[in-house]
Amino acid sequence: MKMNEFAGELLNQIRKKKPLVHNITNFVVMNYTANALLACGASPVMAHAKEEVEEMTQIANALVLNIGTLEPEWVQAMYMATRSAEKRNIPVVMDPVGAGATRYRTETARELIQEGGISVIRGNASEILALANEKVRTRGVDSLHRTEDAALVASEIARTYRKVVAVTGATDVVSDGKITFSSSRIIVMIEHISIPLDERIVGLLRKHSKQEKRSISQVVELALEDFLHRNDTEKGRILSTKSAFQGSFSREEIY
Amino acid sequence: MKMNEFAGELLNQIRKKKPLVHNITNFVVMNYTANALLACGASPVMAHAKEEVEEMTQIANALVLNIGTLEPEWVQAMYMATRSAEKRNIPVVMDPVGAGATRYRTETARELIQEGGISVIRGNASEILALANEKVRTRGVDSLHRTEDAALVASEIARTYRKVVAVTGATDVVSDGKITFSSSRIIVMIEHISIPLDERIVGLLRKHSKQEKRSISQVVELALEDFLHRNDTEKGRILSTKSAFQGSFSREEIY
Amino acid sequence: MKMNEFAGELLNQIRKKKPLVHNITNFVVMNYTANALLACGASPVMAHAKEEVEEMTQIANALVLNIGTLEPEWVQAMYMATRSAEKRNIPVVMDPVGAGATRYRTETARELIQEGGISVIRGNASEILALANEKVRTRGVDSLHRTEDAALVASEIARTYRKVVAVTGATDVVSDGKITFSSSRIIVMIEHISIPLDERIVGLLRKHSKQEKRSISQVVELALEDFLHRNDTEKGRILSTKSAFQGSFSREEIY
Repeated sequence: MKMNEFAGELLNQIRKKKPLVHNITNFVVMNYTANALLACGASPVMAHAKEEVEEMTQIANALVLNIGTLEPEWVQAMYMATRSAEKRNIPVVMDPVGAGATRYRTETARELIQEGGISVIRGNASEILALANEKVRTRGVDSLHRTEDAALVASEIARTYRKVVAVTGATDVVSDGKITFSSSRIIVMIEHISIPLDERIVGLLRKHSKQEKRSISQVVELALEDFLHRNDTEKGRILSTKSAFQGSFSREEIY
Repeated sequence: MKMNEFAGELLNQIRKKKPLVHNITNFVVMNYTANALLACGASPVMAHAKEEVEEMTQIANALVLNIGTLEPEWVQAMYMATRSAEKRNIPVVMDPVGAGATRYRTETARELIQEGGISVIRGNASEILALANEKVRTRGVDSLHRTEDAALVASEIARTYRKVVAVTGATDVVSDGKITFSSSRIIVMIEHISIPLDERIVGLLRKHSKQEKRSISQVVELALEDFLHRNDTEKGRILSTKSAFQGSFSREEIY
Repeated sequence: MKMNEFAGELLNQIRKKKPLVHNITNFVVMNYTANALLACGASPVMAHAKEEVEEMTQIANALVLNIGTLEPEWVQAMYMATRSAEKRNIPVVMDPVGAGATRYRTETARELIQEGGISVIRGNASEILALANEKVRTRGVDSLHRTEDAALVASEIARTYRKVVAVTGATDVVSDGKITFSSSRIIVMIEHISIPLDERIVGLLRKHSKQEKRSISQVVELALEDFLHRNDTEKGRILSTKSAFQGSFSREEIY
């Protein structure tokens, strides 16, 4: 099975479930994130008011927190939504954008992790290192460290807080505290991590993880594009029912 | 006359008037909305601070309210701007994004309608149904209902509040409470609704409404693209004076 | 040397320095601005909370203030960031979007200028005129005046407040109060203005300023595109290390 078929499998899974993803995310990536989720077949909703976040999380299948362009009211909303998500046992993904750049972001990210409820942390190397070490500095939202440097810390954070930690970059690292996968040119093996996965997907991941010489997002990008543009009939069908991704994954790190 | 010529007629009308459209809209679609308005020849401005919305509406030719990513300060600004628009008798379009998903959005949308001043309501089927029925639920910002199911309710809301109500989806419905048009595969006839239209446009709408097998926005999209790219001279002229739309109308519902 | 080679020189300068640019900017253009900065080789960061703006400016190489979609909390953050930038002597660029449209924007822009710390003001003709004259009105964010009309005022503002003032439009004007360059169809000569420039760049600007019949941004756009797409190898290299600009410079004025 080729990579685009594998991506097609993943996309089919998402398209069947059409998960409603509640995002409390930054202003820069809101449109981008909405379109990426739509292109994958998910149903995005952005909501940050304290007046509605708990209720929105109650009907969502997943919650995404992104601390870029942070402000106090939004932090409060993140706590409310996370507690609401925890009660329903739905996954909560947190992206510590800019942790290490300012104390405000570093401390907010740490406190969100300590509070509990978050399932997955995804950051670049500097951001993940900053979560564990006050002296680590991030240059705005860009990483000053290589992913490899953050692998041990990612593993420690994962073990301490019982979360999955993903470090993305030229190299990708994923750890659940017990097993840590790192790969510079092949897709990360994630068969043993805590997220329950369909056996079929695990099998496909295992099969293809050693064949491709690309980072996770490059593979996903390539496969997505390939899948969407494979043939005119298929392309027409997808474009007319849902949406094609209106951006391009042109950078490993966007925010 | 072909569809692209018809769209060209509409575009010419807008380009001559260059209406200033004041938007109080959500974070996800702000850039998208600004570019769509620019591409049509209108002049968009986004402003939401209570310090300036009344003054901005005073120089605008239309006001657009969109309740996505809502928060209390923005709701107050919407009331201020609507009252300012009402005094000048300019059209106010309201998009009840996510009505039915949370009480906050449903109640805000209902209160805005009851307060008066709004001329046109445009939503998907679930959102329109939620305006009339507390038990209707919306899945985030996606419709769980077909447009046909919302036709009667749209008509009732239009009659009760003396507004024009448009329900968009695979099928489009437009009603002013007296006459309701519904079409699954042809462009909706809007000749009898309350918005005063140039007789020439009404004639063109009447002529072409039965020929095309597409929803309103698909026809508009196709015609816009066709018009913009019809020939190099025309394209060059438009691109250099205003802007071409930097997105694509790839989904009936965006937000 | 051709224009694309000249743009290549400029891009190389930026790519070597990779300046961190701290933006406090409006919701409409945030994603656009971030992508434009990335495409140029700079590192953008958006932050507006009073809790972190001073600290963010402390690690930045430049600060950009844009008063579109303004609100009081953001104005306070702009003052805090500007004072922080002034201490470090980094350039601060201010875009008075919509000055002249509402008192709130006009007064905020004027007060920011009077407070000091801002190095460069960039606006359209109406916005620049509104900074000096209360009776000047702006139509939303679009200019009602020609750049030529604003040249004298730009020069006066530049002299009074010791700043560089740029007026952009079909014609571009740049002034430092001592020398004012205006050009309708050739790139503006900026060799004598206050911004210290590499002698080599000044030489290139001088050489090419009389050859091209385009406004500044058109030339930059053309050259950027030309440079990025010159050949597959180069294109591949750039796209894989940083990001290609995901929009298009299709309009002289965006916001």
